[in-house]
Amino acid sequence: MPNIRDHIPANLPQEVFTDLVSMPGCRIERILSRGQTSPESGWYDQDEHEWVLLLEGASELTFEDGEVVRLGPGDYLNIPAHRRHRVSWTDPEQTSVWLAVFYG
Amino acid sequence: MPNIRDHIPANLPQEVFTDLVSMPGCRIERILSRGQTSPESGWYDQDEHEWVLLLEGASELTFEDGEVVRLGPGDYLNIPAHRRHRVSWTDPEQTSVWLAVFYG
Repeated sequence: MPNIRDHIPANLPQEVFTDLVSMPGCRIERILSRGQTSPESGWYDQDEHEWVLLLEGASELTFEDGEVVRLGPGDYLNIPAHRRHRVSWTDPEQTSVWLAVFYG
Repeated sequence: MPNIRDHIPANLPQEVFTDLVSMPGCRIERILSRGQTSPESGWYDQDEHEWVLLLEGASELTFEDGEVVRLGPGDYLNIPAHRRHRVSWTDPEQTSVWLAVFYG
């Protein structure tokens, strides 16, 4: 039985993205972060909607429209397609475990 | 910021299903169980695939082909469309919090 906490490395020099489901119209991904952020210059601008749940850790998303949201364990939100955003902070002291569902 | 642990009642006389995302081709649902099981007589036989993650609690799924899987926190599995299954046990002493993604 696979577990969402399987294979979390002790050191995380870069983010780790793992597809759990990949189908047309629906992709489920686990993302591990530890201190990483999106490049300062870049916004995610996605063709798909994204529903994201922070399972563990602490992170922050910033939207191009100025909204900033801080996420703790269990917090979730929906990011409509083409709502530009970036990961502006992830806690460097613990691993953030995200579950992201891309759809539509 | 909504949290996946919001609105978990102290008493749970029946299972609680909450749609978090509902779109053609992708539906995300939170399910709360506490001791409930599927009816003895019935199998879930779904037109969609289901990816299910047990966030908290302890539960058991039984498949028509005889496979029985016990799930603890963080365990997940994929149930292809029309693979008949039922929830054969959920811990009556704690609330099981499931995240289910129906797709395809």
